[in-house]
Amino acid sequence: MTSTAAVLVIGDEILSGRTQDTNTNHIARFLAALGIDLKEARVVPDDRCEIVAALNALRARHDLVFTTGGIGPTHDDITADAVAAAFNVGIGYHPEAYALLEARYPPGEFNEARKRMARIPHGAALIANSVSGAPGFQIGNVYVMAGVPMVMRAMLEAIAPQLPRGVAVQSITVEAAVPEGVVAAGLAALQKAHPDVAIGSYPFYREGAAQPFGAQLVIRGRDGDAVERAAQALEALIRELGAAPQRVK
Amino acid sequence: MTSTAAVLVIGDEILSGRTQDTNTNHIARFLAALGIDLKEARVVPDDRCEIVAALNALRARHDLVFTTGGIGPTHDDITADAVAAAFNVGIGYHPEAYALLEARYPPGEFNEARKRMARIPHGAALIANSVSGAPGFQIGNVYVMAGVPMVMRAMLEAIAPQLPRGVAVQSITVEAAVPEGVVAAGLAALQKAHPDVAIGSYPFYREGAAQPFGAQLVIRGRDGDAVERAAQALEALIRELGAAPQRVK
Repeated sequence: MTSTAAVLVIGDEILSGRTQDTNTNHIARFLAALGIDLKEARVVPDDRCEIVAALNALRARHDLVFTTGGIGPTHDDITADAVAAAFNVGIGYHPEAYALLEARYPPGEFNEARKRMARIPHGAALIANSVSGAPGFQIGNVYVMAGVPMVMRAMLEAIAPQLPRGVAVQSITVEAAVPEGVVAAGLAALQKAHPDVAIGSYPFYREGAAQPFGAQLVIRGRDGDAVERAAQALEALIRELGAAPQRVK
Repeated sequence: MTSTAAVLVIGDEILSGRTQDTNTNHIARFLAALGIDLKEARVVPDDRCEIVAALNALRARHDLVFTTGGIGPTHDDITADAVAAAFNVGIGYHPEAYALLEARYPPGEFNEARKRMARIPHGAALIANSVSGAPGFQIGNVYVMAGVPMVMRAMLEAIAPQLPRGVAVQSITVEAAVPEGVVAAGLAALQKAHPDVAIGSYPFYREGAAQPFGAQLVIRGRDGDAVERAAQALEALIRELGAAPQRVK
Protein backbone atom coordinates (compact mmCIF):
# COMPACT_ATOMS: atom_id res chain seq x y z
CA MET A 1 0.00 0.00 0.00
CA THR A 2 1.53 3.29 -1.07
CA SER A 3 1.84 5.94 1.62
CA THR A 4 0.41 9.36 0.91
CA ALA A 5 1.77 12.65 2.15
CA ALA A 6 0.99 16.34 2.38
CA VAL A 7 3.18 19.40 2.84
CA LEU A 8 2.13 22.35 4.98
CA VAL A 9 4.22 25.47 4.43
CA ILE A 10 3.82 27.95 7.28
CA GLY A 11 4.81 31.57 6.80
CA ASP A 12 3.58 35.05 5.97
CA GLU A 13 6.69 35.54 3.84
CA ILE A 14 5.50 33.01 1.27
CA LEU A 15 2.02 34.52 0.94
CA SER A 16 3.32 38.10 0.78
CA GLY A 17 5.56 37.11 -2.11
CA ARG A 18 8.73 38.06 -0.25
CA THR A 19 10.03 34.50 -0.39
CA GLN A 20 9.77 31.91 -3.16
CA ASP A 21 9.00 28.57 -1.53
CA THR A 22 11.41 25.88 -2.66
CA ASN A 23 10.85 23.44 0.21
CA THR A 24 7.74 21.89 -1.33
CA ASN A 25 9.62 21.00 -4.50
CA HIS A 26 12.51 19.54 -2.52
CA ILE A 27 10.19 17.45 -0.33
CA ALA A 28 8.27 16.31 -3.43
CA ARG A 29 11.42 14.93 -5.03
CA PHE A 30 12.62 13.44 -1.77
CA LEU A 31 9.34 11.59 -1.22
CA ALA A 32 9.14 10.46 -4.84
CA ALA A 33 12.49 8.71 -4.43
CA LEU A 34 11.15 6.87 -1.38
CA GLY A 35 8.00 5.80 -3.22
CA ILE A 36 5.71 8.04 -1.16
CA ASP A 37 2.99 9.96 -3.02
CA LEU A 38 2.79 13.68 -2.28
CA LYS A 39 -0.92 14.35 -2.73
CA GLU A 40 -1.42 17.92 -1.56
CA ALA A 41 0.43 21.02 -0.43
CA ARG A 42 -0.84 24.08 1.39
CA VAL A 43 0.59 27.42 2.42
CA VAL A 44 -0.87 29.17 5.45
CA PRO A 45 0.11 32.38 7.25
CA ASP A 46 1.66 32.66 10.74
CA ASP A 47 -1.79 32.42 12.28
CA ARG A 48 -2.55 29.87 14.98
CA CYS A 49 -6.11 29.10 13.86
CA GLU A 50 -5.08 28.68 10.24
CA ILE A 51 -2.20 26.38 11.12
CA VAL A 52 -4.36 24.24 13.41
CA ALA A 53 -7.19 23.92 10.88
CA ALA A 54 -4.92 23.04 7.97
CA LEU A 55 -2.84 20.61 10.01
CA ASN A 56 -5.88 18.78 11.32
CA ALA A 57 -7.35 18.53 7.82
CA LEU A 58 -4.12 17.20 6.36
CA ARG A 59 -3.15 14.76 9.10
CA ALA A 60 -6.58 13.16 8.95
CA ARG A 61 -6.34 12.66 5.19
CA HIS A 62 -2.76 11.57 4.67
CA ASP A 63 -0.35 9.03 6.12
CA LEU A 64 2.37 11.64 6.57
CA VAL A 65 2.41 15.42 6.91
CA PHE A 66 5.53 17.54 6.63
CA THR A 67 5.46 21.12 7.87
CA THR A 68 8.10 23.76 7.24
CA GLY A 69 8.62 27.09 8.97
CA GLY A 70 7.91 28.85 12.24
CA ILE A 71 10.13 26.98 14.70
CA GLY A 72 12.74 29.66 15.42
CA PRO A 73 13.27 31.84 18.52
CA THR A 74 11.28 34.95 17.56
CA HIS A 75 7.72 36.01 18.42
CA ASP A 76 6.44 35.11 14.94
CA ASP A 77 7.53 31.47 15.37
CA ILE A 78 4.31 29.88 16.58
CA THR A 79 4.34 26.50 14.87
CA ALA A 80 5.18 24.39 17.95
CA ASP A 81 2.31 25.93 19.93
CA ALA A 82 -0.08 25.52 17.02
CA VAL A 83 0.88 21.86 16.56
CA ALA A 84 0.35 21.22 20.29
CA ALA A 85 -3.08 22.85 19.99
CA ALA A 86 -3.92 20.76 16.91
CA PHE A 87 -3.06 17.55 18.81
CA ASN A 88 -4.66 18.89 21.98
CA VAL A 89 -1.55 18.21 24.05
CA GLY A 90 0.53 20.39 26.33
CA ILE A 91 3.87 21.94 25.44
CA GLY A 92 6.99 22.61 27.47
CA TYR A 93 10.76 22.39 27.51
CA HIS A 94 11.93 19.06 26.15
CA PRO A 95 14.87 17.99 28.37
CA GLU A 96 16.98 16.70 25.49
CA ALA A 97 16.27 19.72 23.29
CA TYR A 98 16.99 22.02 26.21
CA ALA A 99 20.30 20.32 26.97
CA LEU A 100 21.51 20.31 23.39
CA LEU A 101 20.63 23.96 22.87
CA GLU A 102 22.14 24.99 26.21
CA ALA A 103 25.39 23.32 25.20
CA ARG A 104 25.56 25.35 21.99
CA TYR A 105 25.73 28.77 23.65
CA PRO A 106 28.43 30.39 25.80
CA PRO A 107 27.50 30.78 29.47
CA GLY A 108 24.81 33.43 29.95
CA GLU A 109 23.73 33.47 26.30
CA PHE A 110 21.08 30.76 26.50
CA ASN A 111 18.34 33.33 26.95
CA GLU A 112 14.55 33.05 27.03
CA ALA A 113 14.22 33.41 23.25
CA ARG A 114 16.65 30.60 22.62
CA LYS A 115 14.98 28.46 25.25
CA ARG A 116 11.77 28.90 23.25
CA MET A 117 13.27 26.59 20.64
CA ALA A 118 13.32 23.81 23.25
CA ARG A 119 9.54 24.07 23.71
CA ILE A 120 8.19 20.87 22.16
CA PRO A 121 4.66 19.42 22.32
CA HIS A 122 4.30 16.63 24.87
CA GLY A 123 4.83 13.20 23.38
CA ALA A 124 6.82 14.43 20.39
CA ALA A 125 10.17 12.97 19.33
CA LEU A 126 13.01 15.27 18.26
CA ILE A 127 14.28 15.60 14.70
CA ALA A 128 18.01 16.27 14.57
CA ASN A 129 19.25 19.52 13.03
CA SER A 130 22.85 19.03 11.96
CA VAL A 131 23.06 22.57 10.57
CA SER A 132 22.06 24.91 13.37
CA GLY A 133 21.18 22.76 16.35
CA ALA A 134 17.56 23.70 17.13
CA PRO A 135 15.61 20.48 16.55
CA GLY A 136 12.40 19.82 14.71
CA PHE A 137 10.01 17.24 16.05
CA GLN A 138 7.64 14.45 15.09
CA ILE A 139 4.27 13.90 16.70
CA GLY A 140 1.85 11.31 15.41
CA ASN A 141 2.10 11.36 11.63
CA VAL A 142 3.35 14.97 11.51
CA TYR A 143 6.97 15.99 10.94
CA VAL A 144 7.68 19.57 11.94
CA MET A 145 10.71 21.07 10.25
CA ALA A 146 12.47 24.41 9.85
CA GLY A 147 11.71 26.83 7.03
CA VAL A 148 15.32 27.68 6.14
CA PRO A 149 15.93 25.36 3.18
CA MET A 150 19.38 24.18 4.24
CA VAL A 151 18.08 23.25 7.70
CA MET A 152 14.90 21.68 6.33
CA ARG A 153 16.94 19.46 4.02
CA ALA A 154 19.15 18.30 6.88
CA MET A 155 16.06 17.41 8.89
CA LEU A 156 14.60 15.43 5.99
CA GLU A 157 17.83 13.44 5.79
CA ALA A 158 17.62 12.83 9.52
CA ILE A 159 14.12 11.33 9.36
CA ALA A 160 14.61 9.41 6.12
CA PRO A 161 15.50 6.11 7.86
CA GLN A 162 12.20 6.07 9.75
CA LEU A 163 9.92 6.87 6.81
CA PRO A 164 7.97 4.10 5.09
CA ARG A 165 9.31 2.95 1.73
CA GLY A 166 7.23 2.17 -1.28
CA VAL A 167 7.88 1.35 -4.88
CA ALA A 168 9.26 4.53 -6.40
CA VAL A 169 7.43 6.01 -9.35
CA GLN A 170 9.45 5.74 -12.53
CA SER A 171 9.12 8.25 -15.28
CA ILE A 172 10.23 8.69 -18.85
CA THR A 173 10.06 12.11 -20.45
CA VAL A 174 9.82 12.28 -24.22
CA GLU A 175 10.24 15.63 -25.88
CA ALA A 176 8.59 16.31 -29.21
CA ALA A 177 8.61 19.37 -31.46
CA VAL A 178 4.90 18.87 -32.10
CA PRO A 179 2.19 21.29 -30.90
CA GLU A 180 0.06 19.87 -28.08
CA GLY A 181 -3.05 20.26 -30.20
CA VAL A 182 -1.57 17.92 -32.81
CA VAL A 183 -0.43 15.18 -30.45
CA ALA A 184 -3.46 15.43 -28.13
CA ALA A 185 -5.79 12.92 -29.81
CA GLY A 186 -3.10 10.23 -30.05
CA LEU A 187 -2.04 10.97 -26.49
CA ALA A 188 -5.58 10.49 -25.18
CA ALA A 189 -5.79 7.14 -27.00
CA LEU A 190 -2.40 6.18 -25.60
CA GLN A 191 -3.53 6.99 -22.07
CA LYS A 192 -6.61 4.82 -22.59
CA ALA A 193 -4.51 1.94 -23.89
CA HIS A 194 -2.05 2.22 -20.99
CA PRO A 195 -4.22 2.74 -17.90
CA ASP A 196 -1.39 1.62 -15.57
CA VAL A 197 0.63 4.76 -16.29
CA ALA A 198 -0.19 8.46 -16.05
CA ILE A 199 0.65 10.59 -19.06
CA GLY A 200 1.15 14.32 -18.64
CA SER A 201 1.74 16.90 -21.34
CA TYR A 202 3.70 20.08 -20.66
CA PRO A 203 3.93 22.48 -23.58
CA PHE A 204 6.87 24.70 -24.39
CA TYR A 205 7.57 27.47 -26.84
CA ARG A 206 11.08 27.94 -28.24
CA GLU A 207 11.38 31.19 -30.04
CA GLY A 208 13.34 30.92 -33.27
CA ALA A 209 13.07 27.13 -33.57
CA ALA A 210 11.84 25.67 -36.89
CA GLN A 211 8.85 24.29 -34.94
CA PRO A 212 8.66 26.56 -31.88
CA PHE A 213 5.69 24.74 -30.32
CA GLY A 214 6.39 21.46 -28.62
CA ALA A 215 5.70 19.47 -25.52
CA GLN A 216 7.43 17.39 -22.92
CA LEU A 217 5.37 14.25 -22.55
CA VAL A 218 5.86 12.54 -19.23
CA ILE A 219 4.93 8.93 -18.54
CA ARG A 220 4.83 7.94 -14.89
CA GLY A 221 4.08 4.69 -13.15
CA ARG A 222 5.30 2.19 -10.59
CA ASP A 223 5.70 -0.64 -13.12
CA GLY A 224 8.89 0.12 -15.01
CA ASP A 225 8.03 -2.24 -17.88
CA ALA A 226 4.64 -0.62 -18.32
CA VAL A 227 6.28 2.82 -18.37
CA GLU A 228 8.77 1.63 -20.99
CA ARG A 229 6.02 0.08 -23.14
CA ALA A 230 3.99 3.28 -23.04
CA ALA A 231 7.09 5.34 -23.85
CA GLN A 232 7.82 3.23 -26.92
CA ALA A 233 4.23 3.55 -28.08
CA LEU A 234 4.49 7.29 -27.54
CA GLU A 235 7.69 7.49 -29.56
CA ALA A 236 5.98 5.62 -32.40
CA LEU A 237 3.08 8.09 -32.23
CA ILE A 238 5.41 11.06 -32.49
CA ARG A 239 7.21 9.55 -35.46
CA GLU A 240 3.83 9.00 -37.14
CA LEU A 241 3.27 12.72 -36.73
CA GLY A 242 6.49 13.36 -38.63
CA ALA A 243 8.64 14.45 -35.71
CA ALA A 244 11.64 12.97 -33.90
CA PRO A 245 10.94 11.96 -30.30
CA GLN A 246 13.74 12.57 -27.87
CA ARG A 247 14.05 11.16 -24.36
CA VAL A 248 15.22 13.78 -21.90
CA LYS A 249 16.13 13.72 -18.22
CA MET B 1 -12.51 46.39 3.62
CA THR B 2 -9.48 44.50 2.35
CA SER B 3 -10.18 41.73 -0.14
CA THR B 4 -8.75 38.31 0.58
CA ALA B 5 -7.57 35.82 -1.99
CA ALA B 6 -6.42 32.23 -2.40
CA VAL B 7 -4.35 30.50 -5.06
CA LEU B 8 -5.11 26.98 -6.26
CA VAL B 9 -2.30 25.39 -8.24
CA ILE B 10 -3.54 22.41 -10.26
CA GLY B 11 -1.05 19.87 -11.56
CA ASP B 12 0.58 16.50 -10.93
CA GLU B 13 3.88 17.99 -12.13
CA ILE B 14 4.13 20.24 -9.07
CA LEU B 15 3.43 17.42 -6.58
CA SER B 16 5.79 14.99 -8.32
CA GLY B 17 8.57 17.56 -8.01
CA ARG B 18 9.06 17.74 -11.78
CA THR B 19 8.16 21.42 -11.85
CA GLN B 20 8.97 24.17 -9.35
CA ASP B 21 5.85 26.31 -8.98
CA THR B 22 6.62 29.99 -9.47
CA ASN B 23 3.08 31.14 -10.22
CA THR B 24 2.08 31.42 -6.56
CA ASN B 25 4.94 33.79 -5.86
CA HIS B 26 4.12 35.89 -8.90
CA ILE B 27 0.44 36.12 -7.98
CA ALA B 28 1.36 36.94 -4.37
CA ARG B 29 3.43 39.93 -5.48
CA PHE B 30 0.84 41.00 -8.00
CA LEU B 31 -1.96 40.97 -5.42
CA ALA B 32 0.18 42.70 -2.80
CA ALA B 33 0.65 45.62 -5.17
CA LEU B 34 -3.14 45.87 -5.57
CA GLY B 35 -3.70 45.80 -1.82
CA ILE B 36 -5.30 42.34 -1.86
CA ASP B 37 -4.28 39.89 0.88
CA LEU B 38 -3.25 36.44 -0.31
CA LYS B 39 -4.32 34.27 2.63
CA GLU B 40 -3.84 30.72 1.43
CA ALA B 41 -2.41 28.62 -1.37
CA ARG B 42 -3.00 25.00 -2.22
CA VAL B 43 -1.58 22.54 -4.72
CA VAL B 44 -3.77 19.65 -5.88
CA PRO B 45 -3.23 16.90 -8.47
CA ASP B 46 -5.01 16.55 -11.82
CA ASP B 47 -7.91 14.83 -10.10
CA ARG B 48 -11.45 16.03 -10.54
CA CYS B 49 -12.64 15.33 -6.98
CA GLU B 50 -9.60 17.00 -5.46
CA ILE B 51 -9.97 20.10 -7.64
CA VAL B 52 -13.70 20.41 -6.91
CA ALA B 53 -13.24 20.00 -3.14
CA ALA B 54 -10.37 22.48 -2.89
CA LEU B 55 -12.06 25.02 -5.13
CA ASN B 56 -15.30 24.92 -3.20
CA ALA B 57 -13.46 25.28 0.11
CA LEU B 58 -11.43 28.24 -1.14
CA ARG B 59 -14.17 30.13 -2.97
CA ALA B 60 -16.39 29.97 0.13
CA ARG B 61 -13.65 31.39 2.34
CA HIS B 62 -12.07 34.08 0.17
CA ASP B 63 -13.19 37.02 -1.93
CA LEU B 64 -11.10 35.91 -4.89
CA VAL B 65 -9.61 32.61 -6.01
CA PHE B 66 -6.96 32.27 -8.71
CA THR B 67 -6.31 28.88 -10.25
CA THR B 68 -3.39 27.96 -12.49
CA GLY B 69 -2.98 24.94 -14.73
CA GLY B 70 -4.96 22.34 -16.59
CA ILE B 71 -6.65 24.36 -19.33
CA GLY B 72 -4.76 23.09 -22.38
CA PRO B 73 -5.86 20.72 -25.18
CA THR B 74 -4.65 17.37 -23.81
CA HIS B 75 -6.49 14.65 -21.88
CA ASP B 76 -4.85 15.66 -18.58
CA ASP B 77 -6.32 19.17 -18.81
CA ILE B 78 -9.47 18.77 -16.73
CA THR B 79 -9.71 22.10 -14.93
CA ALA B 80 -12.61 23.57 -16.93
CA ASP B 81 -14.76 20.49 -16.32
CA ALA B 82 -13.85 20.42 -12.65
CA VAL B 83 -14.71 24.12 -12.25
CA ALA B 84 -18.08 23.55 -13.95
CA ALA B 85 -18.72 20.66 -11.55
CA ALA B 86 -17.74 22.79 -8.56
CA PHE B 87 -20.21 25.49 -9.61
CA ASN B 88 -22.76 22.87 -10.65
CA VAL B 89 -23.19 24.40 -14.11
CA GLY B 90 -22.95 22.92 -17.58
CA ILE B 91 -20.02 23.32 -19.92
CA GLY B 92 -19.79 23.70 -23.67
CA TYR B 93 -18.17 25.60 -26.51
CA HIS B 94 -18.10 29.31 -25.78
CA PRO B 95 -18.89 31.05 -29.10
CA GLU B 96 -16.30 33.78 -28.66
CA ALA B 97 -13.60 31.38 -27.51
CA TYR B 98 -14.44 29.04 -30.37
CA ALA B 99 -14.24 31.84 -32.92
CA LEU B 100 -10.96 33.24 -31.68
CA LEU B 101 -9.31 29.83 -31.55
CA GLU B 102 -10.66 28.85 -34.97
CA ALA B 103 -9.14 32.01 -36.42
CA ARG B 104 -5.70 31.09 -35.06
CA TYR B 105 -5.33 27.87 -37.03
CA PRO B 106 -4.94 27.20 -40.74
CA PRO B 107 -8.00 25.59 -42.38
CA GLY B 108 -8.40 21.98 -41.26
CA GLU B 109 -6.11 22.31 -38.24
CA PHE B 110 -8.76 23.36 -35.72
CA ASN B 111 -9.19 19.79 -34.50
CA GLU B 112 -11.16 18.28 -31.62
CA ALA B 113 -8.29 18.70 -29.15
CA ARG B 114 -7.95 22.38 -29.94
CA LYS B 115 -11.71 22.83 -29.77
CA ARG B 116 -11.48 21.45 -26.21
CA MET B 117 -9.85 24.75 -25.24
CA ALA B 118 -13.09 26.54 -26.20
CA ARG B 119 -15.07 24.49 -23.67
CA ILE B 120 -16.00 26.98 -20.95
CA PRO B 121 -18.42 26.58 -18.03
CA HIS B 122 -21.79 28.20 -18.64
CA GLY B 123 -21.99 31.74 -17.34
CA ALA B 124 -18.23 32.30 -17.32
CA ALA B 125 -16.53 35.33 -18.89
CA LEU B 126 -13.35 34.91 -20.91
CA ILE B 127 -9.90 36.03 -19.79
CA ALA B 128 -7.76 37.18 -22.70
CA ASN B 129 -4.53 35.32 -23.47
CA SER B 130 -2.26 37.65 -25.42
CA VAL B 131 0.50 35.04 -25.58
CA SER B 132 -1.01 31.92 -27.08
CA GLY B 133 -4.68 32.64 -27.71
CA ALA B 134 -6.52 30.01 -25.67
CA PRO B 135 -8.45 32.02 -23.08
CA GLY B 136 -8.86 31.57 -19.36
CA PHE B 137 -12.17 32.36 -17.75
CA GLN B 138 -13.80 33.91 -14.72
CA ILE B 139 -16.85 32.47 -13.02
CA GLY B 140 -18.17 33.90 -9.79
CA ASN B 141 -15.17 34.85 -7.69
CA VAL B 142 -12.89 32.35 -9.41
CA TYR B 143 -10.28 33.26 -12.05
CA VAL B 144 -9.09 30.26 -14.04
CA MET B 145 -5.69 30.75 -15.67
CA ALA B 146 -3.06 28.78 -17.54
CA GLY B 147 -0.17 27.03 -15.82
CA VAL B 148 2.57 28.15 -18.21
CA PRO B 149 4.06 31.12 -16.32
CA MET B 150 4.30 33.45 -19.31
CA VAL B 151 0.66 32.84 -20.20
CA MET B 152 -0.50 33.06 -16.59
CA ARG B 153 1.20 36.44 -16.22
CA ALA B 154 -0.47 37.78 -19.35
CA MET B 155 -3.85 36.65 -18.01
CA LEU B 156 -3.22 38.37 -14.68
CA GLU B 157 -2.48 41.59 -16.53
CA ALA B 158 -5.68 41.15 -18.51
CA ILE B 159 -7.87 40.87 -15.41
CA ALA B 160 -6.06 43.50 -13.35
CA PRO B 161 -8.45 46.32 -14.30
CA GLN B 162 -11.46 44.43 -12.95
CA LEU B 163 -9.93 43.38 -9.62
CA PRO B 164 -10.79 45.28 -6.43
CA ARG B 165 -8.15 47.68 -5.15
CA GLY B 166 -7.19 48.12 -1.55
CA VAL B 167 -4.52 49.96 0.33
CA ALA B 168 -1.27 48.22 -0.54
CA VAL B 169 0.79 46.81 2.29
CA GLN B 170 4.02 48.72 2.74
CA SER B 171 7.10 47.07 4.09
CA ILE B 172 10.52 48.03 5.31
CA THR B 173 13.21 45.39 5.62
CA VAL B 174 16.04 46.02 8.06
CA GLU B 175 19.02 43.74 7.98
CA ALA B 176 21.09 43.18 11.08
CA ALA B 177 24.19 41.09 11.72
CA VAL B 178 22.71 39.97 15.03
CA PRO B 179 21.63 36.39 15.80
CA GLU B 180 17.86 35.98 16.01
CA GLY B 181 18.18 34.71 19.56
CA VAL B 182 19.78 38.01 20.59
CA VAL B 183 17.28 40.33 18.93
CA ALA B 184 14.21 38.20 19.75
CA ALA B 185 13.26 39.69 23.13
CA GLY B 186 13.47 43.27 21.87
CA LEU B 187 11.60 42.28 18.75
CA ALA B 188 8.73 40.76 20.72
CA ALA B 189 8.49 43.97 22.79
CA LEU B 190 8.58 46.02 19.59
CA GLN B 191 5.74 43.96 18.12
CA LYS B 192 3.70 44.54 21.28
CA ALA B 193 4.36 48.31 21.14
CA HIS B 194 3.44 48.50 17.45
CA PRO B 195 0.34 46.33 17.07
CA ASP B 196 -0.62 48.02 13.79
CA VAL B 197 2.30 46.41 11.96
CA ALA B 198 3.42 42.80 11.56
CA ILE B 199 7.06 42.08 12.26
CA GLY B 200 8.68 39.01 10.74
CA SER B 201 12.18 37.70 11.33
CA TYR B 202 14.04 35.70 8.70
CA PRO B 203 17.46 34.44 9.73
CA PHE B 204 20.47 34.07 7.48
CA TYR B 205 23.92 32.58 7.79
CA ARG B 206 26.83 34.12 5.87
CA GLU B 207 29.83 31.89 5.98
CA GLY B 208 33.06 33.78 6.54
CA ALA B 209 31.42 36.97 7.80
CA ALA B 210 32.69 38.45 11.09
CA GLN B 211 29.22 37.80 12.51
CA PRO B 212 27.82 35.05 10.26
CA PHE B 213 24.42 34.87 11.99
CA GLY B 214 21.96 37.61 11.16
CA ALA B 215 18.37 38.28 10.27
CA GLN B 216 16.26 40.24 7.87
CA LEU B 217 13.57 41.89 9.95
CA VAL B 218 10.51 42.81 7.94
CA ILE B 219 7.92 45.33 9.08
CA ARG B 220 4.65 45.28 7.18
CA GLY B 221 1.52 47.33 7.46
CA ARG B 222 -1.01 49.41 5.55
CA ASP B 223 -0.19 52.64 7.45
CA GLY B 224 3.09 53.89 6.00
CA ASP B 225 3.77 56.18 8.96
CA ALA B 226 3.25 53.34 11.41
CA VAL B 227 5.63 51.16 9.39
CA GLU B 228 8.25 53.91 9.39
CA ARG B 229 7.88 54.51 13.14
CA ALA B 230 8.30 50.81 13.88
CA ALA B 231 11.32 50.64 11.53
CA GLN B 232 13.03 53.53 13.34
CA ALA B 233 12.36 51.88 16.69
CA LEU B 234 13.78 48.65 15.29
CA GLU B 235 16.91 50.43 14.06
CA ALA B 236 17.39 51.92 17.52
CA LEU B 237 17.02 48.44 19.02
CA ILE B 238 19.68 47.01 16.74
CA ARG B 239 22.09 49.84 17.54
CA GLU B 240 21.55 49.18 21.25
CA LEU B 241 22.64 45.60 20.55
CA GLY B 242 25.89 46.98 19.12
CA ALA B 243 25.18 46.34 15.45
CA ALA B 244 24.54 48.56 12.42
CA PRO B 245 21.02 48.24 11.00
CA GLN B 246 20.78 48.41 7.25
CA ARG B 247 17.63 48.95 5.22
CA VAL B 248 17.49 46.64 2.23
CA LYS B 249 15.11 46.26 -0.70
